[in-house]
This record gives sequence, C-alpha cells and structure tokens, in this order.
Amino acid sequence: MADSPRISVLGLGAMGRALAETFVKGGYSTTVWNRSSGKDAELIALGAQSPGALAAALTAGEVIVACLLDHASVHETLDPVVESLRGRILVNLTSTRPDQARELAEWAGRHDIEYLDGGIMATPHLIGGPAAAIYYSGSRRAFDEYRPVLETLGGAEYFGADAGNAAAVDFALLAAMYTMFAGVLHGAAVVRSVGMSAEDFGQRAANFLSAMTFSLPTVGKRVDSGDYSDPEQDLYFTKSAVDAIVATSRAAGVDLDIIGAVRDLIDRQIASGHGREGWERIFESLRP
Amino acid sequence: MADSPRISVLGLGAMGRALAETFVKGGYSTTVWNRSSGKDAELIALGAQSPGALAAALTAGEVIVACLLDHASVHETLDPVVESLRGRILVNLTSTRPDQARELAEWAGRHDIEYLDGGIMATPHLIGGPAAAIYYSGSRRAFDEYRPVLETLGGAEYFGADAGNAAAVDFALLAAMYTMFAGVLHGAAVVRSVGMSAEDFGQRAANFLSAMTFSLPTVGKRVDSGDYSDPEQDLYFTKSAVDAIVATSRAAGVDLDIIGAVRDLIDRQIASGHGREGWERIFESLRP
Repeated sequence: MADSPRISVLGLGAMGRALAETFVKGGYSTTVWNRSSGKDAELIALGAQSPGALAAALTAGEVIVACLLDHASVHETLDPVVESLRGRILVNLTSTRPDQARELAEWAGRHDIEYLDGGIMATPHLIGGPAAAIYYSGSRRAFDEYRPVLETLGGAEYFGADAGNAAAVDFALLAAMYTMFAGVLHGAAVVRSVGMSAEDFGQRAANFLSAMTFSLPTVGKRVDSGDYSDPEQDLYFTKSAVDAIVATSRAAGVDLDIIGAVRDLIDRQIASGHGREGWERIFESLRP
Repeated sequence: MADSPRISVLGLGAMGRALAETFVKGGYSTTVWNRSSGKDAELIALGAQSPGALAAALTAGEVIVACLLDHASVHETLDPVVESLRGRILVNLTSTRPDQARELAEWAGRHDIEYLDGGIMATPHLIGGPAAAIYYSGSRRAFDEYRPVLETLGGAEYFGADAGNAAAVDFALLAAMYTMFAGVLHGAAVVRSVGMSAEDFGQRAANFLSAMTFSLPTVGKRVDSGDYSDPEQDLYFTKSAVDAIVATSRAAGVDLDIIGAVRDLIDRQIASGHGREGWERIFESLRP
C-alpha cells in the first residue's frame, strides 16, 4: 500500500491547496476537506475527492496531511473525530511551535496515531518544485515508509524522533529571516536620507547579503569550537564599525532599536573582557 | 596624464596593501607610504616606490589614495603636509561616517584638493577582481576623469556630489549585514537546544537567506510606494509568526534582545492600527 497510499489533506488555505494539488498531479488518490466550503472547486476539477464530512475524509486516507491555522485548530478539528484517526499516519504541516508539536505527538501516541511533524520551508507556489524543502521530526518509521509521498511535495529531511525538532529548526531560520528583513529596512531608512529608493537599496542588499552568506558556515564552525581567539575581525573593530553605523543612523533620524540591539550584544562581550576575540563571540551573548 | 596617472597609496594595512598591489600589477607607477615601517617590502619587490617621507610620497602621485585607520588618522596624517596635496586628487577610502566624509570634503576644498570619498564593499582579497565594488561620492569631475584608475580596483559607482553619500549607502548595507549575522547567531542559539551544530545551521541559513533575498527589491518597491494595503503577508500574521519565534527562543533559553527588537517594530505598527496592512510597514517604525 505504501507504494501509492491514499492521502487526505485537511485545510485548504493557500498552502493546503498547493499540497493537495501537488498530490493529485503526482498521481495520488487525494481527498480534501476544509472547515468552510468553497475552497475545493479547483481541486475537484483536477480529480480530488471532497466528501464534505470530516470523518469521511479521514477514513478515505491512509496518510492524513493537516495544514490548518494553528495548534489550537488542530485540536478543535481532530479531537471530535480522533477515533477515525486510529492506526493512521498524521503528517502535521500546520505551523506549530516545538512545544506544541511535542504536545501533539503525545496526544497522537495516546490515540494510536503515528505522528510526523513538518515545517514547510517554502511558499505555496514553490511546493512540488526543486526549491521546496520540508523539515520533519517525529516517527522515523512513518518518515522512512512514506518518504516518496513526502518527497512529492519537495525535499524531505528528518530531524529526529523528538517531534519538536523540525519546528525548532524552522523557527530558527525564520528568526534569521525576519531579522535580516528588519536590518534591510533599517538600511533602506538610512539611505532614504541621501535620496536612494528602497527598491534600489533592496537590490543592492540582495546582492551584498547573498554574497555575505558564504561566510555563515565558517562563522558557525568558530561558534561550535567555542574558541574565538586569533580572529579575522575582533570585537573592538566590530564595535567601532557598528558604533559608526549607529551614529550614521541617528544622524539620519532612523530608529535605533534594531542596530542598537546588535551593538548591545557586542558591548556585553567587550564588557566581559573579550574585545580582542572574534566578533562571532556575540553568540555567547545570545545562547542559553 | 590621466591615461596613466602616477598613484600614491597611503596606509598599508591589509586593505591598503591590496589596493597598492592591484595598482602596481595594473601597470601604474605606484608610490606607497605607511606610518610605521616594514609594511612595504612585498610591494617594493613588485615594483612600487617607497620613499619613506610622506611629503615625498605625496609629490610623487597625481592621485593620492588614502586607506588609513579612521577619520582622525586622515587629519593627523595629512594636516601637517596639506600644502603638498594642493592641486592633487585625494581618493579617501578610509572608512568614515557620512558627516566625517563631508567634513573632509570641506577641508579639502579649503586647500584646493579635489576630493572623492569611497566606501569599499569588499574584503582585501577581492580587490581587483570582479566581485569587488567601491562606492564613490564627491567630485564628479575626479570620478569621471579617473574612472579607469578607480575601476582597476573593482566596480566603481558614483553616488553624487555630496561626499557623504557613498558612506551612507556603505553603512546602510553594513547595518543590514551585521543585523543579518546577529539574526543567524540567534537562530544558531535556538537550534543548539535540539542538538544542531552552528556550522550545520550556518549552511542552512546561507541557503535559505540567500534564496529569501530575491524578494528584497519587491519589498523595497512597496516601501517606496508607501501603500501597504492588499498585502501578501499582513502584520497580524507576521506578529503571530514572530511571537511564536519569541516563545520558542524563550523556551530554549535564548536571549530575546534581537528578535524582541523585531517584534517591537511590528507591535508599534499594529498599535497604530495597521494590522491588516503588509509587514513591510515596519519600515514606518524605522524611518525618520
């Protein structure tokens, strides 16, 4: 059966629709369900089943893929019909925190449901293509047995039996992404003072930052070693650069919340006597 | 004379040496000077002149390229010999803030020195190669006439007669870079809680963030328009995502300074009643 398992997709927001469409086009017998009606028309036209009742959608699938609003929606939707899930595979792609994913894994275990939690590292229009990646954690057996199903959606990577792991990596990357976006908008506010458009700056930032990302594995390696001596760039130098950026931002009338937070991480390490060590040591201001 | 002007490079730190070496290899008659001795041996071996006395180094060059420690060093070095600079071109590649670049442009003007300020968007080993870019502002005439000289070092772009403009764009990009680095180290601290190495996370972040930079020009375009209605992702959604990241970070024992600053920018816009508008509106929390 695992060669071509029947799949049910719960939740037909933009992402759920993209998942269901990819399964249908991948040749899987696909059943869809959404809390409110009217989201299934295109999928039915493509060949999906849409029985209307949630219990019917669950019994139709061997693998249940949930892509709901949030952790609370998962319980609100599935608690009343949990007996219909018994013995099935639940792949939860709803965005949930690590602690919420762990809670759902325990809940699933109590009801004899095999649970795999997933974090989608892609936008809906990328699903099914080479640029999509989904991070999974939870049941290793489910990941291994249904890997072809999961890979229909994009690259599939397994992060361990702890169901919260995939969400932790997902959220850590999103933390870096939102912080990068805030930094770019900070820069856009600075250059507005000299008449540069945010679009022009955005293009320059895209080129510059993607070039700078090449150093991130090396930065990480130094952090892993815990040895910040013999630096390429020490904290004193970094402080002088960031202080100059802060002064430039202040002179341009730009809010200092973001760049000030970066400066504070540096200052804390210098205050602890590490000025001659590598700037990567700001990790030590952040870590537990 | 502008076909092959004689060049003097002041300051032989790692960057100054890279600049001088590139000029020598580019066939320019190159004179070098450094405050302390012993940095010129390799350059002399390549064919550079090194007269020792600063005044001699200045009179040897038509174009004077300064790459000193900071703004104060430029004055300390050049004030005593300013008469030797009269009628020459000073290309100041010392890292200076916009206000400091403007001060130097005024100082140069008072002494009949043609001033061009530059911000180097490259590390020393990239100088002279296709990946190096240098941003210039100040004398348009000097930029146009000596463009082949400047392009020997890498891509040369002119940002206007206000000598502070190049530094403003330079520092704005560096603000985005340091903020991105801080965001990645935040993420690395989060995933340490699930046993992932910072090197592994750094590689993932490099891939993910460089993919995400594609959106930056579009983000900038929306910011330029000032119209954040009809969003792809609104502030309410962004808040729920960032709140979940904050909660995940807190649970992992990670410092909240960086991601908290991002959240605060979002909260300010929502408090002003813009929750249904695009997340790019956090620019309005930052701009003057």
